[in-house]
Order: sequence, then structure tokens, then C-alpha cells
Amino acid sequence: MTTTLFDKLNWRYATKKMDPAKPVPQDKVDQIIEAVRMAPTSSGTQPFHLFVVTNPDTRAEIRKVAWDQAQITDGSHLLVFAAWDNYTAERIDGVVGQMEAERGKNERLSGYYDNLKSTYLPRDAEVNYNHAARQAYIGLGFALAAAAELEIDSTPMEGFDADKVDAILGLREKGLRSVVLLPLGYRQEDGDWLVKMKKVRKPREEFVTEVA
Amino acid sequence: MTTTLFDKLNWRYATKKMDPAKPVPQDKVDQIIEAVRMAPTSSGTQPFHLFVVTNPDTRAEIRKVAWDQAQITDGSHLLVFAAWDNYTAERIDGVVGQMEAERGKNERLSGYYDNLKSTYLPRDAEVNYNHAARQAYIGLGFALAAAAELEIDSTPMEGFDADKVDAILGLREKGLRSVVLLPLGYRQEDGDWLVKMKKVRKPREEFVTEVA
Repeated sequence: MTTTLFDKLNWRYATKKMDPAKPVPQDKVDQIIEAVRMAPTSSGTQPFHLFVVTNPDTRAEIRKVAWDQAQITDGSHLLVFAAWDNYTAERIDGVVGQMEAERGKNERLSGYYDNLKSTYLPRDAEVNYNHAARQAYIGLGFALAAAAELEIDSTPMEGFDADKVDAILGLREKGLRSVVLLPLGYRQEDGDWLVKMKKVRKPREEFVTEVA
Repeated sequence: MTTTLFDKLNWRYATKKMDPAKPVPQDKVDQIIEAVRMAPTSSGTQPFHLFVVTNPDTRAEIRKVAWDQAQITDGSHLLVFAAWDNYTAERIDGVVGQMEAERGKNERLSGYYDNLKSTYLPRDAEVNYNHAARQAYIGLGFALAAAAELEIDSTPMEGFDADKVDAILGLREKGLRSVVLLPLGYRQEDGDWLVKMKKVRKPREEFVTEVA
């Protein structure tokens, strides 16, 4: 291995106990946010929004509807990935508008997105939301990798009442739905039952098939 | 920025033209595969399988049902992320069995997965497949980040006929469904209309909301 990213990906784990006395420096949080913003998404739509919650009361409220998982308040920053609830003409036009502003107008581009609209807009909102949610998971992957690279601990969480998190953050009125949470912090090893355990992954021969 | 991962994430782009004369060395492909294998997934189930297709005929067949995208055959390796079509008792028991083998038996563990089964197994297969597919996208994120770190080009693709790719690779009989493709290769700049274009991403203030 020529780089350390791979060691860092092995170093990371779903931290169970974060140290409330050790906040993550803002410049590191900013790098993690930047990695999420750089993540590629289907047709470049970036169909999700990232909430960075530091407010203690808001995090306490979210913790209550997330199986009381302590990392939400013991960490210093809570990332909430919120996907578009649907694709709309306005949203896609916004994407095209920004591309045209930065790259210039071009027929290939407008034709591509006209075609995209004719595919997406007639579909059920739930289908489109599920598609947008998958893109948010690419962003989640980038956040996890970037956090590991910076030796920041993080714990991806799907165990929460999405409707209630949506209500706490006012997401539905913005056309968004919470998809996954990622608290950031530093591990507190003496309170963490998982930190000493072996990382378990399927062996490569069970996980990978080569078609040569 | 103290590391180069962030520069690399900015360097990467959805390569439109790969150089057929420049295969990716196997040791680099192995590192990308290892990153995917290390990716965290919901409850550690790793509910997807990774196909690494180098066979030229198979890739030519896949290209035909993937909008004729040339990177599939111009690149040297095609990663196919294939999610579980459903959660089953056998699959979850397999996860628990491996964890017990590597970490020892423990009641917290078996109780957790009994609870997971009672949630997952009664659900519609499509709901479970969609959940598994999201996990595959975390793996996709890790593959994209790892490839960038290694300066390998890659092009995530959702534009393909999943049923036909499933048939080509025999996925359905294995209880798998193709979710996303990722050809790996090296950019051929003189044939790539995108390489010189500015990367377009939403500005941070539009993409991120801080709740402080």
C-alpha cells in the first residue's frame, strides 16, 4: 500500500462512545463537508442537502428519536443527510442553470437534462426519493472516508425516526427527507465496548467474484 | 488541508474517455476492492456482492445494454455492485455466525440480530432490496475515494438495463440485483469532452445548512 488511506479505513469503526470533552476542530469538519460537496451524484444533481447540527438542544431532541444513541450529543457535530423528496422541473432547471453559468450554454447539456426530466418527472415521488437517497449515500461514503483520513471518529446511523427528525429540522417544508445521520467526534476508549473488538468483514473470496 | 485526499477528490471526474492501451495494475485494483470490503454497512451485514469483470466478451455484452458507454470496454476493469434482492434468515444468520466465530458468542449480539430479523424479514422484498442498495452506494463511495487516492480514473454509471446485466452475470439466481457500475481505467484526455471542463458543484452556502 503506497498511501495511508487504506490503513485509515481499517482504523475507523462505528464509534460507540465519543468523548464529550473533545470537540472536532472546525477546520476538520470543514474538510469533511468539502468531501461531501465534491462527491459525484447522478447527472450531477446533488439531490440532497447536508445539515451540520451543533446546537445542543437540537441534538438532544434528535437523540430522543434516535434510540437514545449517545454519540449524537457526545460528539461535537451531527451531520444529517437529507435527500430531495422528489425531482422537480425547478430543481433540475437549477442544476442546468448553474452548469450553464459556469461552463457556458451548450445543446448537448440542455438536451441531456430535457431527457432526464422526461424520465424523472412522471415517476412516483417515492421512486425519485429513493434514487436521491442513494446519492446521499455516496456523500456518506465520502464523509466516512474523509473523516477516517483525518482521524476523526464517526458513526453512521440509520436507527432513527425519520419523520420526527424531519419535524425537528423542518425538512418536509423544504422538500427534504432525512436519510442517514453521522455524528462526528473522538472515541472515548474506556467507555466503548466495540473499540477493542476485531473488525469483522467477509473474506474477499466470499465478497468478490472475478469474471475473467 | 493537511493531506492530499481532498485534492484527489477534486482531481477525479466522471471520465468520458478511457485509454484502452493502459490497464490498471492489479495491485491498485486490489486496493480499491479492499476499500469496498472495508466499507461500513448497516448492522455490518455487507448486503451486496462485488463483481470485478475483466472478460472482454462479458464487458462487450454489458456495454450493449448500458447505452453503449465506451468506458465499460475501454477501461480495464468493470466493478459491478450487486445488492441482495432481499434479507433472509439464512443471510443474517451467516453474518452472525461469522461475527461469533471471530469475536466469540455474546448475548447482546444474538439479541440484536434476532431483533433485526423481526424487523427485516416481514418487510416487502423491494424495501429490503432498496435498503441493501443504499449500502452498496457506501461501497461505491469508498471505491470512488480509493480510486481517486490512487489516481485511477473511474466513472460511476446508473445508465444501464439492470435486468439485462443481471441476466448476463447470472445475478438473480444468486439472489442479487445489479445496482451500479464502475469502470476503472486511465483517462485519455484527447478524446474526453469533459476533462477540460470546470467541475460544477453547488456552493457550500446552498448545499449546507448549519444549525448552531
